[in-house]
Amino acid sequence: MREAYHVQLDQLADQLADMCVQVAEAMERATTALLGADLQLAEQVISSDNEIDDARSACEEQAYALLALQAPVATDLRTVLAAIHAAESLERMGDLALHVAKAARRRHPQHVLPEQVSGYFAEMGKVTVRMAQKAEQVIRSKDVDSARALEDDDDEVDDLHRHLFTVLMDKEWPHGVATAVDVTLLGRFYERFADHAVSVARRVVFMVTGKMPGSDNDDVDV
Amino acid sequence: MREAYHVQLDQLADQLADMCVQVAEAMERATTALLGADLQLAEQVISSDNEIDDARSACEEQAYALLALQAPVATDLRTVLAAIHAAESLERMGDLALHVAKAARRRHPQHVLPEQVSGYFAEMGKVTVRMAQKAEQVIRSKDVDSARALEDDDDEVDDLHRHLFTVLMDKEWPHGVATAVDVTLLGRFYERFADHAVSVARRVVFMVTGKMPGSDNDDVDV
Repeated sequence: MREAYHVQLDQLADQLADMCVQVAEAMERATTALLGADLQLAEQVISSDNEIDDARSACEEQAYALLALQAPVATDLRTVLAAIHAAESLERMGDLALHVAKAARRRHPQHVLPEQVSGYFAEMGKVTVRMAQKAEQVIRSKDVDSARALEDDDDEVDDLHRHLFTVLMDKEWPHGVATAVDVTLLGRFYERFADHAVSVARRVVFMVTGKMPGSDNDDVDV
Repeated sequence: MREAYHVQLDQLADQLADMCVQVAEAMERATTALLGADLQLAEQVISSDNEIDDARSACEEQAYALLALQAPVATDLRTVLAAIHAAESLERMGDLALHVAKAARRRHPQHVLPEQVSGYFAEMGKVTVRMAQKAEQVIRSKDVDSARALEDDDDEVDDLHRHLFTVLMDKEWPHGVATAVDVTLLGRFYERFADHAVSVARRVVFMVTGKMPGSDNDDVDV
């Protein structure tokens, strides 16, 4: 049984790693669509979201099979449950990329973002995509130190997000309320994407060490 | 074993129902704090959030114990996993109430909301608190029809949320960008709270019927 358990667990880890690749790509495309008012790319992200949902279902099925057939206990049990939680976070990351793409589509052919803040989103896009890519590596390498490094990336996103709000809240904001509302929600989508990436990495640390690092991640307030 | 399983499962359902009471109370207080700029009430919500987090941990421990000791399969296994997901949604609902309370605290002694939109929040508060209370009844009664009725409440929240955005996006919005940003985020907190309440109810339908109703709930776009 131990060997079958490890084979199945490796398969589950592979599936999670593949989901990381999917959500990294979704967020990369969604950000490019947002910054370039690229309708075709936005549509691609929107129509691919169901593949991420399917991947999550497949992960859950694999986890169920593992639990039902192997009936793991103690750390083995917690490991499988951590994988189920990670799959849920990854699906949510896909949803957040989808929201970014939908914002780009909704305002097309206009740009959603005024020039003044597009740099923040280019940067938040870069860091969040990198986080999803790092999460993939973390799952494949099971390297606890790289998992912890995602927290630094998350701090970077939080900083960008805070600065963005300073710009928004400035009395001189010249782009009107409707644009401010779009920018507010989009900022939150990136920030939540980063939170979920950290959560995935923490679950991996748990899967490797049997200990959950720090308290569970919550979004910062803005 | 079957009997022990059912006793433990009943305990788990009781714990989830108690969490519903906690998050309903948190959202009720947070909304009152928001509408009345009541700092003391806001502080109460903020300092009680860790109790909701603890309740979620206790639910997970109970679920782990159930899985480890009873090694359920098939529908029994899925039932326990549904409970773990429901506990996660409930913790998130507590976080969202916390965010509302923190917004009230941040702007104190000022009111966060202009008169023009406070009616929307009073109404969204009423419906979302009712949803959390109904989720409690659904868990205790295992009544599938009342579980499904939460979808209607969610539609009501989505409608209120959409109307709120119409007001915000109106060229005549006289309250400035900073207030619009607050209103945008607060609207989203209520909308997500409602989504999670529906998700909890769907998990209960699954626990009772063994079938997941419809597709998993995602937030509407604004």
